[in-house]
Amino acid sequence: MFNPFRADGPGFLGEILDLLGERGRLLLGRRDEAPQARADDLAQLAEVLLSRRGQAAGGALAASLAAGYLGAAPAERHAFLGRLARDFGPDTDRSDAAIRAFHEGAPRALEALHAATEPRRQEVFRRLNLAPGGTGTLLQMRTDLLDILPSMPELAGVNADFLHLFTSWFNRGFLNLQQIDWDTPASILEKIIRYEAVHEIRNWDDLRNRLKPRDRRCYAFFHPQLPGEPLIFVEVALTTEIPAAIAPLLDLDRVPVEPEQATTAVFYSISNTQRGLAGVSFGNFLIKQVVELLRAEWPELRDFVTLSPVPGFARWLDAARKDSDSVLPEQLRQALDASDPAPEAAILSAAALYFLRARDARGRVVDPVARFHLGNGASLQRLNPGGDLSANGLGQSHGLMVNYRYTPADIERNHEAFAERGEVVASDAVRKALPARA
Amino acid sequence: MFNPFRADGPGFLGEILDLLGERGRLLLGRRDEAPQARADDLAQLAEVLLSRRGQAAGGALAASLAAGYLGAAPAERHAFLGRLARDFGPDTDRSDAAIRAFHEGAPRALEALHAATEPRRQEVFRRLNLAPGGTGTLLQMRTDLLDILPSMPELAGVNADFLHLFTSWFNRGFLNLQQIDWDTPASILEKIIRYEAVHEIRNWDDLRNRLKPRDRRCYAFFHPQLPGEPLIFVEVALTTEIPAAIAPLLDLDRVPVEPEQATTAVFYSISNTQRGLAGVSFGNFLIKQVVELLRAEWPELRDFVTLSPVPGFARWLDAARKDSDSVLPEQLRQALDASDPAPEAAILSAAALYFLRARDARGRVVDPVARFHLGNGASLQRLNPGGDLSANGLGQSHGLMVNYRYTPADIERNHEAFAERGEVVASDAVRKALPARA
Amino acid sequence: MFNPFRADGPGFLGEILDLLGERGRLLLGRRDEAPQARADDLAQLAEVLLSRRGQAAGGALAASLAAGYLGAAPAERHAFLGRLARDFGPDTDRSDAAIRAFHEGAPRALEALHAATEPRRQEVFRRLNLAPGGTGTLLQMRTDLLDILPSMPELAGVNADFLHLFTSWFNRGFLNLQQIDWDTPASILEKIIRYEAVHEIRNWDDLRNRLKPRDRRCYAFFHPQLPGEPLIFVEVALTTEIPAAIAPLLDLDRVPVEPEQATTAVFYSISNTQRGLAGVSFGNFLIKQVVELLRAEWPELRDFVTLSPVPGFARWLDAARKDSDSVLPEQLRQALDASDPAPEAAILSAAALYFLRARDARGRVVDPVARFHLGNGASLQRLNPGGDLSANGLGQSHGLMVNYRYTPADIERNHEAFAERGEVVASDAVRKALPARA
Amino acid sequence: MFNPFRADGPGFLGEILDLLGERGRLLLGRRDEAPQARADDLAQLAEVLLSRRGQAAGGALAASLAAGYLGAAPAERHAFLGRLARDFGPDTDRSDAAIRAFHEGAPRALEALHAATEPRRQEVFRRLNLAPGGTGTLLQMRTDLLDILPSMPELAGVNADFLHLFTSWFNRGFLNLQQIDWDTPASILEKIIRYEAVHEIRNWDDLRNRLKPRDRRCYAFFHPQLPGEPLIFVEVALTTEIPAAIAPLLDLDRVPVEPEQATTAVFYSISNTQRGLAGVSFGNFLIKQVVELLRAEWPELRDFVTLSPVPGFARWLDAARKDSDSVLPEQLRQALDASDPAPEAAILSAAALYFLRARDARGRVVDPVARFHLGNGASLQRLNPGGDLSANGLGQSHGLMVNYRYTPADIERNHEAFAERGEVVASDAVRKALPARA
Repeated sequence: MFNPFRADGPGFLGEILDLLGERGRLLLGRRDEAPQARADDLAQLAEVLLSRRGQAAGGALAASLAAGYLGAAPAERHAFLGRLARDFGPDTDRSDAAIRAFHEGAPRALEALHAATEPRRQEVFRRLNLAPGGTGTLLQMRTDLLDILPSMPELAGVNADFLHLFTSWFNRGFLNLQQIDWDTPASILEKIIRYEAVHEIRNWDDLRNRLKPRDRRCYAFFHPQLPGEPLIFVEVALTTEIPAAIAPLLDLDRVPVEPEQATTAVFYSISNTQRGLAGVSFGNFLIKQVVELLRAEWPELRDFVTLSPVPGFARWLDAARKDSDSVLPEQLRQALDASDPAPEAAILSAAALYFLRARDARGRVVDPVARFHLGNGASLQRLNPGGDLSANGLGQSHGLMVNYRYTPADIERNHEAFAERGEVVASDAVRKALPARA
Repeated sequence: MFNPFRADGPGFLGEILDLLGERGRLLLGRRDEAPQARADDLAQLAEVLLSRRGQAAGGALAASLAAGYLGAAPAERHAFLGRLARDFGPDTDRSDAAIRAFHEGAPRALEALHAATEPRRQEVFRRLNLAPGGTGTLLQMRTDLLDILPSMPELAGVNADFLHLFTSWFNRGFLNLQQIDWDTPASILEKIIRYEAVHEIRNWDDLRNRLKPRDRRCYAFFHPQLPGEPLIFVEVALTTEIPAAIAPLLDLDRVPVEPEQATTAVFYSISNTQRGLAGVSFGNFLIKQVVELLRAEWPELRDFVTLSPVPGFARWLDAARKDSDSVLPEQLRQALDASDPAPEAAILSAAALYFLRARDARGRVVDPVARFHLGNGASLQRLNPGGDLSANGLGQSHGLMVNYRYTPADIERNHEAFAERGEVVASDAVRKALPARA
Repeated sequence: MFNPFRADGPGFLGEILDLLGERGRLLLGRRDEAPQARADDLAQLAEVLLSRRGQAAGGALAASLAAGYLGAAPAERHAFLGRLARDFGPDTDRSDAAIRAFHEGAPRALEALHAATEPRRQEVFRRLNLAPGGTGTLLQMRTDLLDILPSMPELAGVNADFLHLFTSWFNRGFLNLQQIDWDTPASILEKIIRYEAVHEIRNWDDLRNRLKPRDRRCYAFFHPQLPGEPLIFVEVALTTEIPAAIAPLLDLDRVPVEPEQATTAVFYSISNTQRGLAGVSFGNFLIKQVVELLRAEWPELRDFVTLSPVPGFARWLDAARKDSDSVLPEQLRQALDASDPAPEAAILSAAALYFLRARDARGRVVDPVARFHLGNGASLQRLNPGGDLSANGLGQSHGLMVNYRYTPADIERNHEAFAERGEVVASDAVRKALPARA
Repeated sequence: MFNPFRADGPGFLGEILDLLGERGRLLLGRRDEAPQARADDLAQLAEVLLSRRGQAAGGALAASLAAGYLGAAPAERHAFLGRLARDFGPDTDRSDAAIRAFHEGAPRALEALHAATEPRRQEVFRRLNLAPGGTGTLLQMRTDLLDILPSMPELAGVNADFLHLFTSWFNRGFLNLQQIDWDTPASILEKIIRYEAVHEIRNWDDLRNRLKPRDRRCYAFFHPQLPGEPLIFVEVALTTEIPAAIAPLLDLDRVPVEPEQATTAVFYSISNTQRGLAGVSFGNFLIKQVVELLRAEWPELRDFVTLSPVPGFARWLDAARKDSDSVLPEQLRQALDASDPAPEAAILSAAALYFLRARDARGRVVDPVARFHLGNGASLQRLNPGGDLSANGLGQSHGLMVNYRYTPADIERNHEAFAERGEVVASDAVRKALPARA
């Protein structure tokens, strides 16, 4: 393709080259001659990129910094991120002056203070985006950062800046919803296989079975600057009833339902793909938009539900059984101990407690998937013991799966109840599964 | 098209409706029943949009605010902008706390201060973008704001926030370069006719003559969120020499040049289209990318020049002739007075002074077009008296047009000279046109 | 673009070049050196194209013949068409042998006879189609042929072969229906302006007024091999009643109807564009497909009618008034003579006679537009005196326009009545307009 | 999708329904009520389709015949094909009259005779093409026909008519060349896997390895009326030398070559996909166009060769060894018998004889792949014993593979030599492999 930023001839970046010294010059040169960049080189390039000279050089310099980063060894990448934290924070002189002005009662002083304290790395990021593929490079930096953040807590500010920028750039208004089907390019489908995080796609036959039959749908959000990269996708089955188990849905030999006869849309898998976008929330928008889209296409659809895993259940139950202060009543403990595997009725009661009574150390509903859907305004519709008998399903939740339900007219109220009062909106059936005294 | 955010049924936005009162409820209702929004309504909607409830309602609320704004009377729009300035600035409590923390030496206090002082309207803008067509609505708000900014200086902070946001969102990395030609949809071409700001496109025949012949090109930047809306476009002629006048270039009866035989690419018109994006600079990138693109397609091209108007020349000359302290030598004054119109040689000398010696009150090169191209790293190649004999051309510049030259290898050096030392890089021919003593 | 058939190096077409002699060689060479082709050259190239050598050379040779033809002077083109008639008819030896075999009772002799008597030019045409743009060249040949057919009746067989071939290639199954709107490329819209044959499109504003408002539609058939070339197009207005005059429909200042409130789709103009396809019928398919498409999009539409010119009316009436044997009753003659212009009632009666009683020398309904729509299965719905008060409308039909009506459930029956019994299906209103005794 | 020909209401096809009788009516009705069509039904529909009534009904009737055929049992399909042969041949009355006119010396009698003897089924086919998916249905008919042609030789005329029609409709001028790569829709790639006829594609990893690396290409012809259906495709490897064996080319672990460094394009597999198009030749055009396309993209490429199987070699050699009159010299026989497997040198000599000396009963080069490439104008470049050590390769050719070479400048001459004189153009190396006396 066309590279708009090709440095051309010795004079083009002359002044910058003088500024950079030998190593920097090489970094700007032909890729095959360039030395592997060190954190110092990258930081120097970032400084130049921020300068007025850098503004004119624009893409060429940004491309060099991007290429230098991507070609650098992990240790140098991490050191460069450290430099972003240490040397590219707010300009302290400008900040001090702005604080003084504030105390002196200057007009619009807070706004000036806000401008003065913008970490300098934010502009580095914006200018890096001028490089071809710049957005992807920035996502890679964030991914690297998240890998080491636990051991380098000083990177928290850099992380916050990434998140702030990505929240703005990956605003829902800039995303495109696209259907993924069997006519989608293989290069994208390959990523669907790789990124599916809930129910592994074993091979291309498995994939086709989730995309091609008329009663199956898959939708993804894409960003214009990352073509071919689904950011998040959801897999949907059209059915004639709310399903209680995953295996029949994925069965290669099942008989498809005619969509015109379906009453229920089942969201049975939703996967984020870009670790670098952690914290930027798409799932809420995706589910709601797909609900509207399916309703417009098949007005007969009445129920919009998930068939969801319960990843925290087994671990919680294990702890609760050992903890005499837990919400588990004694009678239920005994029932759970009565056989192995535990009786289904006991699992059901424990599950009701898990969702409706148990809370984690921060006072939150324990299950992360539950927090996501309830936070989106869904309600807890049904508990399905034996819903996932795979090793993974048995291991993480004693086989339990659940349906969350998205009812457009209730979404806002449910969200309010959950977000403001921590209240879990659940069906009568779920409530009845609570042990008598709970 | 599909509206993902349709409010559906009475319950969907129930809580919000209670919050809003009667008028707000109507604003959220069916458009044909809605009252015309007042500034108070809009400010109230903006507050709700910022609330946690607003986050869940997402697009529906954003769409209501967008529609309410677009449907409001000018006075209410302006009042709403005033409310954004007054009521949606930084949160003062958070800001005060952050300033205290800074003085107490809290870690990463400046970064926290930056976060705390973000004007609340920035989040309003980001959430408004969730509405279908949200980006366009925001551009319209900025356009409205610029109209009244001179008389409402208190909007300066709002303007700064718009500019900050648009600079990030309309980052060159997010723009697409597209060729505009005779196969382009009429709905876009119609905008090219309307937006052409330099040499009016009189009708569709004139337009075709600038797009269809093999020696003519036109390129524009588009943003994915504003399809069908060129942000800036440049018109190019391929020629066999550097042209000295505009009329022959636009002549409907001229014989086209075979591009393979052309040596020169002439940028004879460049127009920004979105007043709402004032201050976000695209022209620099556009010209440089088109230079690279043309070089790649026709490696024989040697010269990349503009044929540019000189909009400030006549006014400056008028003032200079009256001002005995001006850079005009006495001999030149007399020459200019000798005949009407003034002799071409005298115009030439005055023009050389205008570019090379004259400076405005802020010490800058007087001509705004010159500042743009020299700031981009072009040099001043040639002065063309009699280049534009239209009434407009005679009126603003005594018919003078000039060529600026983009030489890829010199761009960076020229930019440096101009940006840091205010030095105008000009050809020998231009320098020689200076009066003897100047 | 890519030319798959580039002759490359001296050897590629060596044998053929020897065969062709000096002039032929030049014809195969670089275009700028090639002499203008003469009919003899073209006939020679056609012979080679039919040979086994020609099969291998394929596209290169076909491209040379196509370019040679397009570059030839009119007289040479015509002479070449004459050669196609004389020298590229059926192979007489093969034909004689096949006729003998038929008389000898050979099995499947008629099929063999059919194969043996295929005019050799049919294969010339098929091979010419291998040239880039070959289909377009063949259309040009047919156009040329139609121009001179009246004076060169010996070309009738060539014409028949073109028609046979085009009927097969431009089979409805190979055509694409596309909507033409304001987002259509200008290069196509320009052709719509040029080809509109019924109500002249005066300029781009007039065109936009027929394409952009929500109550206006335009559809065209395209062939994959002629991209950017509409073959036929129809202009449609959505209205709330059956219109009686054309001027209000085309008024630039009219208020558009909301399509949701329209009850009637009016086909007010239908134009063929390719003279070379004369005799290949598309209009029937186009109207019926557009009817179905509009019904699917707006189920409220009830009436599908035309607003059609009556091009033969004035001439017929003129003759009928002079011919005492005509279907005009004496009383009507007097009424027509009573004033100038004639009274509307008299025009109405004469029009009813024109459609329902008058027949041409071949026993057909006189009006060609009537024959088209009635042959398609439409009925005659209403006579509109004063429907077209333009000079053209007054001149050809005393201002009369008519509505034909397409009722899906009646199309087949109407077609039968007209095609087999010559019966014009007309509304009661039209029948009542007949003079008392007619 | 949209069905333009929906019969609507009782009256639409009224007359036709009367004509058809009860069963025919049902065939035209809703699909789920329709009886399975019998040959008689289909023949009756075909007759109606040819009638004037049928012309007006157009697509609806064609769609019914197409659906009826596709839903019919195999025996009924075959019987219908028999009816096409018996009842839809040339019109004998018209034919007799035309023959009489010929003998009476009527002008243009042969052309009239050609028209009169056209088998009526040709028009059936053209009208069937009006049905949605009509082209595909016709291909299916031909496929069915080819299945039973050996046992129903009376269908030869029908087969000839199909071939005549398809040769015209699938004219190279109507085909699109498209690259198949890893961004191609999975629904098309799935067909590439299924249709690959030379070197089986084992799974999606194998497929990706043939499409995604920069040194691999695949191109296919498509017809506009059969979107998503490749008609023929060729797989290409870019290499730095002419390859002697297939396994290294297909190795999943090989290191790709940078295309800029490749000197050779290897066509290692070419597969037709549509049995219904048997006899319509695409391969010649495909290879030559891909050669030109690759040359334009990478001017450094010097050699365009195949790596081809030799499917007739083992069978021929077996027969030749048993036949004392064969071209095998005694000494070579002994060498071949000396060991098992036979020595490579002996295989090489036998292969040279196979290509250069052996001829089949019709005097042709024995190997069908050789006939294809030599007929296209390629030369025989190299014999590669041990080129394909798969069971299939060993079985059909003792592991032998060969390279044919396409040299643009020689193609025409090679074609001539082969087509007119039966001469196999081979490299010196191949000639030297002939046994001394051969």
